[in-house]
Amino acid sequence: MEVTTENFKEVLPSILQAVERADFVAIDAEFTGLRRKETSRYCELDTIEERYIKAREAAKDFGMIQFGISAFRYIKEKSSYSHATFCFYLLGKTGDMLYYDNTSLKFLADNGFDFNKLFKSGLPYLSILEEAEKRGEFVNQALEPFPPSPVKVAEEKARKFLIETEEKIDALLEDESREVLVLPGGTLPGFFRKLLYNNIAAKYKNILIRSLTTDQERNIEIRKFDSPEARLKFLEEERERKLDEKVGFTHVIRKVLESGKPLVGHNMMLDLLHLIQKTVQPLPDTLEQFKNVVKANLPTIYDTKLLAKDPPFCVDIPITSLGILYSELCGKFSPPDFIVEEGYESHSLSGGGQAHDAGYDAFMTGVCFITMVKKLDGSNWKNKSVIRSKHLSQFSSRLNNMNSHDIPFLNLVGPDVQTDRSRIFCVDCPAEWNVGNVHGLFNMMKPIKIVWVSSTFLYVIPPEDIDKSGCKQYLKGIQASCPPMVRVRLYGDTLSVKRKSQSDDASPGVEASASRVHEYKRLKSVGSDQLSKMTLESPSMEEVPPIYANANDNGKRMKTNQDAATDGVFAIPDEWCEIPDREGRPHLVPLVLALFIFFKWFW
Amino acid sequence: MEVTTENFKEVLPSILQAVERADFVAIDAEFTGLRRKETSRYCELDTIEERYIKAREAAKDFGMIQFGISAFRYIKEKSSYSHATFCFYLLGKTGDMLYYDNTSLKFLADNGFDFNKLFKSGLPYLSILEEAEKRGEFVNQALEPFPPSPVKVAEEKARKFLIETEEKIDALLEDESREVLVLPGGTLPGFFRKLLYNNIAAKYKNILIRSLTTDQERNIEIRKFDSPEARLKFLEEERERKLDEKVGFTHVIRKVLESGKPLVGHNMMLDLLHLIQKTVQPLPDTLEQFKNVVKANLPTIYDTKLLAKDPPFCVDIPITSLGILYSELCGKFSPPDFIVEEGYESHSLSGGGQAHDAGYDAFMTGVCFITMVKKLDGSNWKNKSVIRSKHLSQFSSRLNNMNSHDIPFLNLVGPDVQTDRSRIFCVDCPAEWNVGNVHGLFNMMKPIKIVWVSSTFLYVIPPEDIDKSGCKQYLKGIQASCPPMVRVRLYGDTLSVKRKSQSDDASPGVEASASRVHEYKRLKSVGSDQLSKMTLESPSMEEVPPIYANANDNGKRMKTNQDAATDGVFAIPDEWCEIPDREGRPHLVPLVLALFIFFKWFW
Repeated sequence: MEVTTENFKEVLPSILQAVERADFVAIDAEFTGLRRKETSRYCELDTIEERYIKAREAAKDFGMIQFGISAFRYIKEKSSYSHATFCFYLLGKTGDMLYYDNTSLKFLADNGFDFNKLFKSGLPYLSILEEAEKRGEFVNQALEPFPPSPVKVAEEKARKFLIETEEKIDALLEDESREVLVLPGGTLPGFFRKLLYNNIAAKYKNILIRSLTTDQERNIEIRKFDSPEARLKFLEEERERKLDEKVGFTHVIRKVLESGKPLVGHNMMLDLLHLIQKTVQPLPDTLEQFKNVVKANLPTIYDTKLLAKDPPFCVDIPITSLGILYSELCGKFSPPDFIVEEGYESHSLSGGGQAHDAGYDAFMTGVCFITMVKKLDGSNWKNKSVIRSKHLSQFSSRLNNMNSHDIPFLNLVGPDVQTDRSRIFCVDCPAEWNVGNVHGLFNMMKPIKIVWVSSTFLYVIPPEDIDKSGCKQYLKGIQASCPPMVRVRLYGDTLSVKRKSQSDDASPGVEASASRVHEYKRLKSVGSDQLSKMTLESPSMEEVPPIYANANDNGKRMKTNQDAATDGVFAIPDEWCEIPDREGRPHLVPLVLALFIFFKWFW
Repeated sequence: MEVTTENFKEVLPSILQAVERADFVAIDAEFTGLRRKETSRYCELDTIEERYIKAREAAKDFGMIQFGISAFRYIKEKSSYSHATFCFYLLGKTGDMLYYDNTSLKFLADNGFDFNKLFKSGLPYLSILEEAEKRGEFVNQALEPFPPSPVKVAEEKARKFLIETEEKIDALLEDESREVLVLPGGTLPGFFRKLLYNNIAAKYKNILIRSLTTDQERNIEIRKFDSPEARLKFLEEERERKLDEKVGFTHVIRKVLESGKPLVGHNMMLDLLHLIQKTVQPLPDTLEQFKNVVKANLPTIYDTKLLAKDPPFCVDIPITSLGILYSELCGKFSPPDFIVEEGYESHSLSGGGQAHDAGYDAFMTGVCFITMVKKLDGSNWKNKSVIRSKHLSQFSSRLNNMNSHDIPFLNLVGPDVQTDRSRIFCVDCPAEWNVGNVHGLFNMMKPIKIVWVSSTFLYVIPPEDIDKSGCKQYLKGIQASCPPMVRVRLYGDTLSVKRKSQSDDASPGVEASASRVHEYKRLKSVGSDQLSKMTLESPSMEEVPPIYANANDNGKRMKTNQDAATDGVFAIPDEWCEIPDREGRPHLVPLVLALFIFFKWFW
């Protein structure tokens, strides 16, 4: 069901009820753009902090113009899932000033997005923080800022207007059958308007004059009251009603967050950041602060793209974009039955829909989620809703980190995977350089992968069979043959410099932890895959797999999926490593060290 | 006629012809917003340079999404005007990143603007400067940046794909009846795509592989050639054709500018700035540089709002917004007959249209222009096209400067009016201050007019009966009673400080000219009116009224029009003054002064 200002009030109760009854809520959003500056383009070797900063910038710069919510519920007796899907058109608050990328909007228009509906009847929203601030301001804010003071009237026309208006108001005051008088305001000169708000308002204490826009006509309403108190009460109620209207779509999000129902999205980092920025509070400056905001406000989150990039799905479905994933899962992995929640219009498996409509995308996401978890649960799936599957814990509160060389996800509730990039070369070059120049410089190692960061900086990822010390050896040769204006070094150097500035306000011991790093060899052979074997701590403590999983190296299989193909031309094993979390929970490595020191000194 | 990518190619010749035949071209534009920051809000006491900076910022920040052109031509034998009107939907170039104000877009949508048409089929455009730069780049730019190098293929599926594709290409090369082979690309994994562009392209020299998007399908076209030269020629033509497509709407504007036909707009400062920014070159930093750009690129310009604010129109039509002006002029000032230019769809006087559609607005602007000039010409109007009226010279190349206290227009081709603001008070106050506090501080002078610039700075305009020395006297009393944190001074101080910084790179003699100022007492009684009596030099030297017109002071009539009413609550005469232009043409005042000194000394 599409939700706009036309039907919002009417359907809000049923939306809230659908959320209340749901097992989980699938979401999707559409934006006015993805990246404002060339320097904000995602780079495969972004650190996870850099990636957050880039995504945060997009969520601050661009509009969120559509939001889809699909509330799913397991009906055990029918072994099927009911769903109710809503597609909200979002305009935001008056005077919101955001960027649009005409290419993004063309893409949406070509996919059937109705921009006329958006701009005519899009819903307003305020963030929960903005709403609280407004309510705070009410306490000290007078309902009428300044008592009206009459202005001089010299001109005949104006005098006449005043007298006529006063006669009309006197008639209104005497007529018990009427509450209001409406004056046509469309062609009223501004000075006459001023006379109303100053001279008339000063003369009559128990009336209220306000502009009123109906059907694109600009009128002026004069309303009478029995007493000044009744007038003030009316003003207060109006203020409350107007704020309530401004909160708009956030009424729905507040309900979703307060209900604690898990959120499910597909490749949902941007969706989640936009959602927080627009309806919760401004996104904080650092990833660490962001995680605190998430912990304080959001329920558990699942990203279907992460599930899809894991076996068994990645084997059969190499492309994980939502539309293709949905049709492939429906074709190959026998989804359960879906029935439309009674009393709701919604999509259906057979009915089809328009991809990139946030409602349909949310629906498809929910179907993908259920179908994948059903598959993971095997024959047990009928016992309970998929949302209670033990297989979910390893995906809990992790966002797919798209187009990353070695960081497959952002961990919303704990430390992120630490990467070892000491084999990667960093190259500063003149702006005229192209791929040929880079291949020329690195001609002794083949095949290399080039990752351009800007026209004057790039990374070179060496072939997998060259190890760290090999890279150091090559570096000497390369530096010796470097043309002027070109500087080559290994990532470690850059990284340590960066880390220094980044960790200024981080907890102490980060540097030290690098030496305590626990490394995983992992083949990025099929998607950013085998996530299940690579898990860190999970926020859900039930069914958590061991903190340190077994290293997993499947050897030299060629990458064959979409990611592999777009990432590069050869398969490289990624080194993964992990640092203990910074919040002081005891970890194995320091414990072993302490025991070692203890025994060394006392035995 | 609406013009989009659907019909642009087809109708372009007839558009160019209509411009070629026209006497003048009326224009109008619609934008995605007007003002991004609160500090960019127009203030009645903006200097003309400040106003340019604010308008320039808007033209850089926001999109121009619709442009209307109405080409008018006088047909003497019928004593009527023909017209051809075009409404262009404008999307701009791929990846243009601009702001949108959701309130502005809602306003347009409520007035029938078709955003779906805009984003699906809006025209591209490049500025004339951008086009020249692109052509310059072609000289040194290789048609193909880097020769393809094959990548390793290990996986069975990929091997199979390569072999099958090679078979298809071999068949294409042998088949004389076919030029191209199209491969479905929508579901092609990225790595397979890479194989095409690297391995296949490296093997076959006389083919061209490129992606092809048709009907939202992403396909890959493989085209064969007889020789490498034929292939290069095709690439070159393609590059030229693509640039031509990107130039899009600018083809029309280039024609308009090159034709030298006068441009007519209504309150057209923003329209003109957007037009230059988007289709000519980036707007320069200063007003002076901007005037040079205008002089170098633009024909004569007339702003109908300035005509409408002058007698006799302002007397009968107090509101000068386009829609109201149009219907009032048609009702009260007997427009001539209008006939639709043969072969063109267009609007008509009787047919009506949708205000805020740029095409209809341009048409209404042209009708207003002709009707007003016809009135000014009196019984002579049938002799020639209005564009040759002697009454136009005083409006030539002047843009209405909306919502200004004392600067009614921006002079595009000469110096602007210099104002005397030495009676105006400048007040720095705490952010908590409101109108009541200001009235309290200025309680000895009534009525005052308050012009807020920010929450901590405002101007106070004293009643007209207090002269400069009176203001200085009051200042002492006000300063004596000033609460802490409040500072009051007269405008002169502020102004001289500002001037100093502003005139760093201005021509010398600006400061000196202030003492040579020639003042006009002028009643802002009906519009920013009686412009005809207040003229500076006009760029058209024929029929120019005397440079120094008689001072005109109609005394104490109350302001009754829209401007007066929104400006303030009382009528104040505005002081106008003028400095000689900076380009060295002799002026009367220095001449008179020189003669005076000459006679004083020698007689």
